[in-house]
Amino acid sequence: MSWLNEVEQYKEELIQIRRFLHEHPELSFQEEQTKNYIADYLEALDIPVKRDVGGNGVLGFINGGKPGPTVGLRADFDALPIQDEKDVLYKSKVPGVMHACGHDGHTAMLLITAKILKQHEEELAGNVVLIHQHAEEVLPGGAKSMIEAGALDGVDYVFGTHTASYIPVGTIGFCPGPAYANADAFKIHIQGKGGHGAAPHETRDAIIAASSLITQFQTIISRSTNPMDTAVVTVGEFKSGTAFNVIADTAYLSGTIRTYLPEVKAMIKERMNDLIRSVEIGYHVSITLDYTDGYPALFNPERETNWAKSLAEDIDGTEVIIQPASLGGEDFSYYLQEKPGTYFYTGVKNESIGAHYSHHHPKFDLDEDGLIHGVEMFLKIVQNITTLTTD
Amino acid sequence: MSWLNEVEQYKEELIQIRRFLHEHPELSFQEEQTKNYIADYLEALDIPVKRDVGGNGVLGFINGGKPGPTVGLRADFDALPIQDEKDVLYKSKVPGVMHACGHDGHTAMLLITAKILKQHEEELAGNVVLIHQHAEEVLPGGAKSMIEAGALDGVDYVFGTHTASYIPVGTIGFCPGPAYANADAFKIHIQGKGGHGAAPHETRDAIIAASSLITQFQTIISRSTNPMDTAVVTVGEFKSGTAFNVIADTAYLSGTIRTYLPEVKAMIKERMNDLIRSVEIGYHVSITLDYTDGYPALFNPERETNWAKSLAEDIDGTEVIIQPASLGGEDFSYYLQEKPGTYFYTGVKNESIGAHYSHHHPKFDLDEDGLIHGVEMFLKIVQNITTLTTD
Amino acid sequence: MSWLNEVEQYKEELIQIRRFLHEHPELSFQEEQTKNYIADYLEALDIPVKRDVGGNGVLGFINGGKPGPTVGLRADFDALPIQDEKDVLYKSKVPGVMHACGHDGHTAMLLITAKILKQHEEELAGNVVLIHQHAEEVLPGGAKSMIEAGALDGVDYVFGTHTASYIPVGTIGFCPGPAYANADAFKIHIQGKGGHGAAPHETRDAIIAASSLITQFQTIISRSTNPMDTAVVTVGEFKSGTAFNVIADTAYLSGTIRTYLPEVKAMIKERMNDLIRSVEIGYHVSITLDYTDGYPALFNPERETNWAKSLAEDIDGTEVIIQPASLGGEDFSYYLQEKPGTYFYTGVKNESIGAHYSHHHPKFDLDEDGLIHGVEMFLKIVQNITTLTTD
Amino acid sequence: MSWLNEVEQYKEELIQIRRFLHEHPELSFQEEQTKNYIADYLEALDIPVKRDVGGNGVLGFINGGKPGPTVGLRADFDALPIQDEKDVLYKSKVPGVMHACGHDGHTAMLLITAKILKQHEEELAGNVVLIHQHAEEVLPGGAKSMIEAGALDGVDYVFGTHTASYIPVGTIGFCPGPAYANADAFKIHIQGKGGHGAAPHETRDAIIAASSLITQFQTIISRSTNPMDTAVVTVGEFKSGTAFNVIADTAYLSGTIRTYLPEVKAMIKERMNDLIRSVEIGYHVSITLDYTDGYPALFNPERETNWAKSLAEDIDGTEVIIQPASLGGEDFSYYLQEKPGTYFYTGVKNESIGAHYSHHHPKFDLDEDGLIHGVEMFLKIVQNITTLTTD
Repeated sequence: MSWLNEVEQYKEELIQIRRFLHEHPELSFQEEQTKNYIADYLEALDIPVKRDVGGNGVLGFINGGKPGPTVGLRADFDALPIQDEKDVLYKSKVPGVMHACGHDGHTAMLLITAKILKQHEEELAGNVVLIHQHAEEVLPGGAKSMIEAGALDGVDYVFGTHTASYIPVGTIGFCPGPAYANADAFKIHIQGKGGHGAAPHETRDAIIAASSLITQFQTIISRSTNPMDTAVVTVGEFKSGTAFNVIADTAYLSGTIRTYLPEVKAMIKERMNDLIRSVEIGYHVSITLDYTDGYPALFNPERETNWAKSLAEDIDGTEVIIQPASLGGEDFSYYLQEKPGTYFYTGVKNESIGAHYSHHHPKFDLDEDGLIHGVEMFLKIVQNITTLTTD
Repeated sequence: MSWLNEVEQYKEELIQIRRFLHEHPELSFQEEQTKNYIADYLEALDIPVKRDVGGNGVLGFINGGKPGPTVGLRADFDALPIQDEKDVLYKSKVPGVMHACGHDGHTAMLLITAKILKQHEEELAGNVVLIHQHAEEVLPGGAKSMIEAGALDGVDYVFGTHTASYIPVGTIGFCPGPAYANADAFKIHIQGKGGHGAAPHETRDAIIAASSLITQFQTIISRSTNPMDTAVVTVGEFKSGTAFNVIADTAYLSGTIRTYLPEVKAMIKERMNDLIRSVEIGYHVSITLDYTDGYPALFNPERETNWAKSLAEDIDGTEVIIQPASLGGEDFSYYLQEKPGTYFYTGVKNESIGAHYSHHHPKFDLDEDGLIHGVEMFLKIVQNITTLTTD
Repeated sequence: MSWLNEVEQYKEELIQIRRFLHEHPELSFQEEQTKNYIADYLEALDIPVKRDVGGNGVLGFINGGKPGPTVGLRADFDALPIQDEKDVLYKSKVPGVMHACGHDGHTAMLLITAKILKQHEEELAGNVVLIHQHAEEVLPGGAKSMIEAGALDGVDYVFGTHTASYIPVGTIGFCPGPAYANADAFKIHIQGKGGHGAAPHETRDAIIAASSLITQFQTIISRSTNPMDTAVVTVGEFKSGTAFNVIADTAYLSGTIRTYLPEVKAMIKERMNDLIRSVEIGYHVSITLDYTDGYPALFNPERETNWAKSLAEDIDGTEVIIQPASLGGEDFSYYLQEKPGTYFYTGVKNESIGAHYSHHHPKFDLDEDGLIHGVEMFLKIVQNITTLTTD
Repeated sequence: MSWLNEVEQYKEELIQIRRFLHEHPELSFQEEQTKNYIADYLEALDIPVKRDVGGNGVLGFINGGKPGPTVGLRADFDALPIQDEKDVLYKSKVPGVMHACGHDGHTAMLLITAKILKQHEEELAGNVVLIHQHAEEVLPGGAKSMIEAGALDGVDYVFGTHTASYIPVGTIGFCPGPAYANADAFKIHIQGKGGHGAAPHETRDAIIAASSLITQFQTIISRSTNPMDTAVVTVGEFKSGTAFNVIADTAYLSGTIRTYLPEVKAMIKERMNDLIRSVEIGYHVSITLDYTDGYPALFNPERETNWAKSLAEDIDGTEVIIQPASLGGEDFSYYLQEKPGTYFYTGVKNESIGAHYSHHHPKFDLDEDGLIHGVEMFLKIVQNITTLTTD
């Protein structure tokens, strides 16, 4: 008897939860109301919770009546500093803050999943840990601190999903291998010596030094990166100078590095540092590099991903696709560094209702019908988890 | 009988005029009070004046009792948008506006010169046109429009002087040949296509295009300019990008070009344009160049300069030096394009009274004793002008 | 009854063939003796042959007694302009020419395969076309002209193998998806204007133009190539100038482009052309690009590759690996553009007998024991071909 | 009584000497016959000589009958490794060696000058040292070693002249201030790590490093050199790579540096060294710089140059011009570092007889009529030398 048949009856509630959260978004690390909303909801279901786990994180525990492995299911719940520009009843009520990445949907799916699982607790082989994570959008993210606070204690497998406004409703996507990148940030300050625009020999021109540095950075990708590997070095900002006829004393650059493999990241950092030292010596300037490590790359292990994909193919009315890797970042990678599992995509695209804007767009929306399939997938995973362990 | 001996008795008045003007500075093209002050002063001496010549310019006419050539003497009278930071009684009374380049001194010198010449009008061989010019500091300058309005009509020779806080009081400087540069300005707007920092292939990176342009600009000086010639291409501003992880769609550059020879300037503009077109094609961006011609370079003709230098060497108590050329600009060049003459330097440096700050510095000041020597020089020129013509 | 059991008894002959060919290598497009050796060998087996197919190519035909698909099996037979430096009895007898890439082994495997298949012609379901191809090492290669001459007429599937001195004897490798790259070549001639080393302004410096071009080429990979795609732009030669104090009038560059996807190759060619035009305009030089298309990239289709891999896993004593893609080129790609199939790797590495030097190395050798496994694989494919079609 | 009137009668002999030398040119540091020819000629005039001064140099001494300063007159006598392509009777008899820079003329002028002076030895106020210098064309030159060997001992003033095929016969040129440059040479070897053209990440690409170095060298002139100063950095050779598909392990560059001021040269060497270290660090290559100092820049002091110019203006039938500075080198600079004097130009251009090719051209020739004016100038200097000292 599949529990999946019961999902449909909770659709209304799923939508209510999602829309309530959508109306009341909270920024990363400031999710006071949301964390309480979640914990209260779970407690009302008689699910024991642990609040303030590694920050605003919430854990819920469902303990199956039969022996089996413990599955962690994760949903993140922070919003973004974006002004909601949609014209809908459930529009954000907080000026300048918006669930523009679908985390409201993630949370609604996991709460409804919890409700159904709770009703089947006796039949359940193994346990489930509900991992409601704060702060996915902003470094250092909530995943790391929640894990440090014990979120994965006793957990054998971990699963999560991201809504996708680029995948149609009814479709579930999988991405074995590298799925999200290590997305780092850097700031570079160049200190030269300014002076009169007609007396370059008395200066150490910061714009010249910075332009040379950027030009030379290109060789990190073109020559030092294995052509088979994936990497990006982008300089996104260049700010220098105050007047057309004054040689600039300083230049400020900022940018981002994207990689999948730690050795590629290490190589890039080494060459960036070497080129920075190089420009210091060549142009008599001093340069500081302020490098911020992003989330590690997210690798979906083949075995668990293929296992989940087979389950999805088994669900009536669900399409399954292989999703290409992204160069964005996602702190679910921390969970997968600790435990096997997979991170899949839940299609929520429906152009006819305006649910097709890209994530982080002020008009981003999702078709809640898609969330039903995500809940089904969570249930299917839990219900079949013993087949993974004995595989 | 040299008229120079009479200068000393007008020193007090010279200082009063200079200090009054110093207290009441007016920005370029806005010199309402100053122009009237000058014209009224001259009229009070019975010198016929022409007001509003090519803008706020003032002309005064002294007609000698004997035949001879007509000499133009020029003094500029605009101030700068700088806050006076000196601690003196005659400090600027206008917030944010200051005579930080010594034009108050120029005007005082020429008014006292006029007063003395008027008294010797009968003895004078030839005529004098007093050219009180507005707006030297800001393009397009007052010289051009005053000339177009007839300032040089009937004039045979033209002379002017700049106070110099880097030359000691009592010293007069000359610079035969190129003395001030053609100082042009440019703005460059690069329009590429922005995008996600991890998807460079979907963008046309404006920072990459701009960095390449700047790097290539260096070859204009290093390879295309005759090593014997003087030229500068400076990029003073580079503004691009809004976020570290977004590829910039536009970049803004500004800078300055300095040259002495028109053919060098023409070559630089041609290569700038070619490199801009080059980067457009190579990086699939579109670029606009907004080029503003500065004043033409100022060339002091050998003959008149050496003649004036000989006169200066003949003045008791005056030191004479050869002053190296500057890469700054000065619109006296327009007069010298029309008539022979020279532009000399009047030393006003005196560190013991704080008169040693560079021009345009908020603490700039001048030692008024130096102005005496400038007046003497003007008188000497007028008194000896016939020796130039018959030379 | 597997025909594979019979392979061992032909081992001696296999070795003889391979060593004979090794002693008598012939350069690409000059394989007169080799083509006759092959054709004569097949005819002696009563296998009908077609000589001089698209050049020096040889086709042999085995027509099965039962209905079934037609399988093409390809082996290339040209050698390289390398001096054999091995100290073995079967060393090349032709100075400066050597089978340093294992094509002698390819040919030996296919001839023995033919001999065994001929003996089972009656049992065979379907036909086999033996494709002995000349000239794989040198553009435009023999594959294209052999196909144009009908080598694939009536063929349903095509298979081939490359010996691999980096894979141990007994191992067969497969590479689903992109396996070999499109490897193009280019030559660039820059025509500037030379002159005295102290008079750069009278010249158009070819070294400056070429250095700028190379620097800018780096952005093709770093900015214009999708980070998920694979591409290389290498400049391998830079020849310019005749004296330290003379500015060079010309520069010569040569290099190579590697890609898998035609759209990436097209993008690279476009940007190369644009940057070349760009440098022409920016530095007033004229540039010619001489671009030679290499073999297209080789893609092994998933279905046939996985099918063959399953067969290999089924062979006793054979290890199976997934081999990473190479950025080298291989004209077997032309066959796979026409017909499904796969190109696999036959391990021939054995360090204990010196068979571990890289391909094209003057000491390259192969362990002939490895060839047995290649013959087995060919036989297995033919014997099981009906399972592929009905799959 | 001017001795200049006597020159004309020696014209025939002057031509004979010059043509004899032209037929028998000798390369720098190998001037065996020439040095003896000169010394013998002087001794035949009863002029005491000193042979083998600092190499192949020859000194001759004329001691005036009256007191006065000692004047050094210098003429160089080496030839060039150029094949004479002129069609004249006095064409070079030595294959591949030629007086293509007019040193034969220099020597002829000084020998005839010596002959005339010797006849007026009694009347002469002061002494004359005839400095016949070997090896001007090849570093380290003969001037330095002759001075070290005492060529300027007791000398108060030193004068010399260069024939000029770009100045008409009858014209003498002067160049006060900087006249010849410091012309240095450099060689750069870059050692990277080669490899396969498709595996840049395993290499350290020498072409990329060298191109970056050259690109960055441009900023030495464009940014670090005072725009008022003159300097050139030219890379004349770039040799790297052996095949289009192999990444180059080494690159060789050579070039030249031209400056007038030692501090500019020092700055350029410092920045070259810094940029070389910079590229070493940035691209993980090692670079050696092999720098050869050329002759120092030649500065003609104002006083002595103007004095000589006045004398020239006083010679009937001689035109006088101011000659612009050259960026070539000349080791007469060593003499002027020790003693005042000047180096002037003797016009020998006459297109009607083919004497208009540039120096070092295989068809270079000079009109011997011009040499008469050079002799006159030497005589005028010696005859008037007391007016210089008492000036």
